[in-house]
Amino acid sequence: MLENLAILPPLMGIAGLAAAYFVYRIIMAHDGGEGRVASIADQIHRAAMTFMARELRVITIFTVLIGVLVAYFIGWPTAVAFFAGAICSSAAGLIGMYTATKANVRTAVAAHKHGRDRALSLAFFGGSVMGLTVAAMGLVGIGGLFLLFIVWGVAGGEGDKSAYAIEGFAMGASIVALFYRVGGGIFTKAADVGADLVGKVEAGIPEDDPRNPGVIADNVGDNVGDVAGMGSDIFESYCGSQIATIIIAATMSLTAATGLVTRDMEEEAIRMALMFLPLALTSIGLVCSVLGIMAVRWASKLDPATALRVGTLGAAGLFMIAAFVAVQMLGLSWRVWAAVFIGALGGVIIGSVTEYYTGGKPVRDIGKSSRTGVATVIINGIAVGLESVVVPILTIAGIILASYMFAFEYGVGIAAVGVLATVGITMAIDAYGPVADNAGGIAEMSAMGKETRDITDGLDSVGNTTAAIGKGFAIGAAGLAALTMIKAFMNVVQETHGVRIGEADYIFTLDLGNPIVLSGIFLGGLTAFLNGSITMKAVGGAAFEMIEEIRRQFRDIPGLLEGKAEPDAERCVEIAANGAMKRLIFPAMLAVGMPLLVGFGLGAQALGGMLVGALICCVALALFMANAGGAWDNAKKWIEEDNEGGKGSPAHAATVVGDTVGDPLKDTSGPSMNILINVMAIWSLVIAPLLVPVAGWLQ
Amino acid sequence: MLENLAILPPLMGIAGLAAAYFVYRIIMAHDGGEGRVASIADQIHRAAMTFMARELRVITIFTVLIGVLVAYFIGWPTAVAFFAGAICSSAAGLIGMYTATKANVRTAVAAHKHGRDRALSLAFFGGSVMGLTVAAMGLVGIGGLFLLFIVWGVAGGEGDKSAYAIEGFAMGASIVALFYRVGGGIFTKAADVGADLVGKVEAGIPEDDPRNPGVIADNVGDNVGDVAGMGSDIFESYCGSQIATIIIAATMSLTAATGLVTRDMEEEAIRMALMFLPLALTSIGLVCSVLGIMAVRWASKLDPATALRVGTLGAAGLFMIAAFVAVQMLGLSWRVWAAVFIGALGGVIIGSVTEYYTGGKPVRDIGKSSRTGVATVIINGIAVGLESVVVPILTIAGIILASYMFAFEYGVGIAAVGVLATVGITMAIDAYGPVADNAGGIAEMSAMGKETRDITDGLDSVGNTTAAIGKGFAIGAAGLAALTMIKAFMNVVQETHGVRIGEADYIFTLDLGNPIVLSGIFLGGLTAFLNGSITMKAVGGAAFEMIEEIRRQFRDIPGLLEGKAEPDAERCVEIAANGAMKRLIFPAMLAVGMPLLVGFGLGAQALGGMLVGALICCVALALFMANAGGAWDNAKKWIEEDNEGGKGSPAHAATVVGDTVGDPLKDTSGPSMNILINVMAIWSLVIAPLLVPVAGWLQ
Repeated sequence: MLENLAILPPLMGIAGLAAAYFVYRIIMAHDGGEGRVASIADQIHRAAMTFMARELRVITIFTVLIGVLVAYFIGWPTAVAFFAGAICSSAAGLIGMYTATKANVRTAVAAHKHGRDRALSLAFFGGSVMGLTVAAMGLVGIGGLFLLFIVWGVAGGEGDKSAYAIEGFAMGASIVALFYRVGGGIFTKAADVGADLVGKVEAGIPEDDPRNPGVIADNVGDNVGDVAGMGSDIFESYCGSQIATIIIAATMSLTAATGLVTRDMEEEAIRMALMFLPLALTSIGLVCSVLGIMAVRWASKLDPATALRVGTLGAAGLFMIAAFVAVQMLGLSWRVWAAVFIGALGGVIIGSVTEYYTGGKPVRDIGKSSRTGVATVIINGIAVGLESVVVPILTIAGIILASYMFAFEYGVGIAAVGVLATVGITMAIDAYGPVADNAGGIAEMSAMGKETRDITDGLDSVGNTTAAIGKGFAIGAAGLAALTMIKAFMNVVQETHGVRIGEADYIFTLDLGNPIVLSGIFLGGLTAFLNGSITMKAVGGAAFEMIEEIRRQFRDIPGLLEGKAEPDAERCVEIAANGAMKRLIFPAMLAVGMPLLVGFGLGAQALGGMLVGALICCVALALFMANAGGAWDNAKKWIEEDNEGGKGSPAHAATVVGDTVGDPLKDTSGPSMNILINVMAIWSLVIAPLLVPVAGWLQ
Repeated sequence: MLENLAILPPLMGIAGLAAAYFVYRIIMAHDGGEGRVASIADQIHRAAMTFMARELRVITIFTVLIGVLVAYFIGWPTAVAFFAGAICSSAAGLIGMYTATKANVRTAVAAHKHGRDRALSLAFFGGSVMGLTVAAMGLVGIGGLFLLFIVWGVAGGEGDKSAYAIEGFAMGASIVALFYRVGGGIFTKAADVGADLVGKVEAGIPEDDPRNPGVIADNVGDNVGDVAGMGSDIFESYCGSQIATIIIAATMSLTAATGLVTRDMEEEAIRMALMFLPLALTSIGLVCSVLGIMAVRWASKLDPATALRVGTLGAAGLFMIAAFVAVQMLGLSWRVWAAVFIGALGGVIIGSVTEYYTGGKPVRDIGKSSRTGVATVIINGIAVGLESVVVPILTIAGIILASYMFAFEYGVGIAAVGVLATVGITMAIDAYGPVADNAGGIAEMSAMGKETRDITDGLDSVGNTTAAIGKGFAIGAAGLAALTMIKAFMNVVQETHGVRIGEADYIFTLDLGNPIVLSGIFLGGLTAFLNGSITMKAVGGAAFEMIEEIRRQFRDIPGLLEGKAEPDAERCVEIAANGAMKRLIFPAMLAVGMPLLVGFGLGAQALGGMLVGALICCVALALFMANAGGAWDNAKKWIEEDNEGGKGSPAHAATVVGDTVGDPLKDTSGPSMNILINVMAIWSLVIAPLLVPVAGWLQ
């Protein structure tokens, strides 16, 4: 039966792509503006695509190099999966961003000509294409490889062993995520900080003013960082958690596996059902996401926040019901479903906590502390960031314990899949933010007037909250995906090393009483902190180049400040792009190098310890950075709503500093933590069969 | 033979106390000033003693309560040790601070009347009493209990089992450290931030100006926070590492223990030698410290930094030689000595790295980034703080691996003892800083003139560096001490649980593949971040009360700003004291509550995981906070040396903000991390025999 069912996920993926194309056609049918509007939009679109093309060139070189090494050392099926992963992830980012940079101007024009409802729909559709493409590309890729390698056995070898090869897919996605997310993050914040510091502070012109040479780059940054970057980040977690769960199903103890089925089945059938479940769930999740997206469209008459909530919660509820049916049909126990439920619930909790810390009382407290100056704004923001770590991490600890109690080691994996199953709509809502933000920028630059700007501001403010929730969600998802990959890593080391030394019942442990594991924990912790430092410095360096260039243009282009001459926006885009490409090399080397160095230099025990140490520090730092940054950003916005003196007051100046400090934290360093832990986890999983538990020289 | 040798450590301790008294008499023989000078000094002295007395009252209540519970649930020997620990730690802090608040004014007067050399000697002697008392009290306490419980068997039970009871000593020290260090930390920064924000920023009067009502409280804070608080912090690590090593020696596998001796000995004799070594090393360390202190006195003609370096490095070198002899005499292998050497070397590396990040190029980079405003100063400081974590943590990982390779599980413990053995002089140099700082404050408040102030500034600037190094050193020491206690915790759970279930070869592991251990890791991580948040908020709240009071006095006391009326300094001291006492309850409950909650609620596996998760996050956050804060502080000082525009420039204003942000990070939240991890580790160790590996409801 499963052999026939297994054809469904890739087909669902293709249907999802068709749905995305359908949404894309709807967007394109709307008015794309003309004259100045169209030319600004086109400038953003072309610059974004140029930067992506540049990233893709470098990604291609890296991918071919690594792919050859993978084919040689691991095997050709893994290499094939690796290329597929890189292609699917690149394509999802490209398609999503291409659409977003078409939807932004249409949103602005709709706000101008038809009012809020249509603008909301368009911005949300713009994000939906990204969401649907991420979900669909994952299904096409993983579903296709599952069919090829596991069901049809194209790669040779036993069914469950050939599952390993699918890991390559997540590894390919990880390379793309490194470039898209870290490179995009540096690009966007270099442009943002540079444009703000010179434009708003030195020249005294408003945000998004067309005279500022850095404004186009800033708007491009929103797309490459928050649309394509975020998409590749979520794509990596989405694929990583599914693939790791498949591997856990292939390698978990038979006793535990048998405890999860309701019928009398052969071992192979049990494993097959457990291996197939992640794909079944994400297929269902895609359908629910499409329905959710339609619900948002219908609900667009309500206020934007409610409309988006109806869509997400509706999709999640529907998914839980359908998942229950799917679990029953596959002959699996309700216990498995309970683990999925726990994961999905945990995702909602983490998102809500993020919403509180970046939108609730803590934000007003930071705003009020501006009475005693900048220093107290910064101190309070740091305190809020530190505190915001607590509940999400408690939630993750709860998910680990509870999902294990229900479904043993399979539990954590399938819970992570549960968090991410309705990625189609959660990602859509996430990507809605930058589209709305861009629409506002275009409205300002092309002087569409206060009324239009009010509409786009309203959409943007909702987008800020959804983006913050999305960030919290992405961190939780990345953490759980990494956790699942770490568990799969342990299973693979145990199985392959057991075979190598001829002991079928060999047990690989990561005992904290073992000094090698313990020092691994410390190595992981320092990797996370080092990554934070180098990404912050990268933004600082790139922003500095940007500042110099904007100053130069204000100085050298006569009539620029008076609005009589055009700025050289392209030069700014190029500087941001160069700065980002140059500076992502070090974080990329860290993420890829550490697993290789520790794995081959010290062994699998140290590497396992390192992954766990990095996991806790990455998740905690990512939450701290994202939420402190988000809280500072919104404290500034709160002051701008005429609190504590409003715009132009000393309180405003103090919170502007907070916002600037938070920018690289929340949009570069914080997100890069998700990538770091996921890249390290997937690379470790791929090299696991080559490792010995403890390197010879340490024994 | 050992039975006779064991009398030496407590005797050495008594001799150390005598040496401290001798140094105290030398200090007191110097001119204590008269008139205004004496009265200001007396005000600081009395206020500091009053705050300590208040802390001691609450400590007494807590200690009696906890002591009774310990006697009931664990046994009377542990309770006796617990009371001894609390008394020894309180006494060390009291004696050290009493002397420091006598030495500060004598340093100021000596600088005024006799010049730099004598002032340096006096400030250093002031710190030396703290250093010698910490070392001596530890030896008297642990040495005495070793003699009573283990050699004379007063507590009954077998020799190595009764070793457990000594844990109570470190537990007692931990309670005192919580109050002294966390309470002192909140006090000092509430006073500092409050006095600075109103005095320097709002009223525009210089630092340490006698018109500022908060200045006395600020100077008191230096003593209760940086002398008594730091002393109790180091005392806890010093005792914790010795005691945990004794317990590891008592519980480690016989095979490993046998591998560490050179002669043919009975099991009991081997264990005895290994158990006695920590005390032997710290006894030797005390002698070397006294010699080092004498060397600094002789070298005081050189520049201060060199004089202090001669003392510390001389003492360390001497210690390593003498330690080699002691190891040989006890019949132990050179491998044990190698572990001690690795620990001592690691301590030097961690200290040097701290010196670089808080005094080298990174500080100038932060200073230069003030050109683009406050935001870049903050961003750069955060980046420096994150980076500064890397080498120290790498060093700790290296110590773990290398010391284990040389001396198995005993290695990490004895390495930690090696880091702390010459605590007499390292602590002396640490406590020198606040004494010199206070001398400067007194000189300013009693208008001793520019010449005197230049001398005290010179001494103070060296003191800033030594204090920064001391902080790094304290973090490293706390981390290694906690690590040793965690290992001892595992051994004790294994042994007692094995006995309980009747399996002599029961093996307790903390396998990261076990979801319970893994969720423990996450719980530990969130505890560290939560502690950071609540201590920062505590400073914020207490500083706010202080600000209101200082503003009130400037407003309500006529003639205060003109220097015609006296401020009500006592009221400010009281407010800082109240604020600190009230706000240390939550961090104290967190530190004490988490091990009990997790240990009894989830079991020893979750608790072990929690300790490791907290360890990595506490050490990393402590380093981040201490070094970012130190770097900001010194960037401000660098600007004040006429760089980037000097005092009064926008660059100066930007770095003043950085300094204010860094204050609670480096002097409250950062240090509280040392306490948190050590308190949690020692409490876990004490309750270890009562725990089951996994709580019943989780199985």
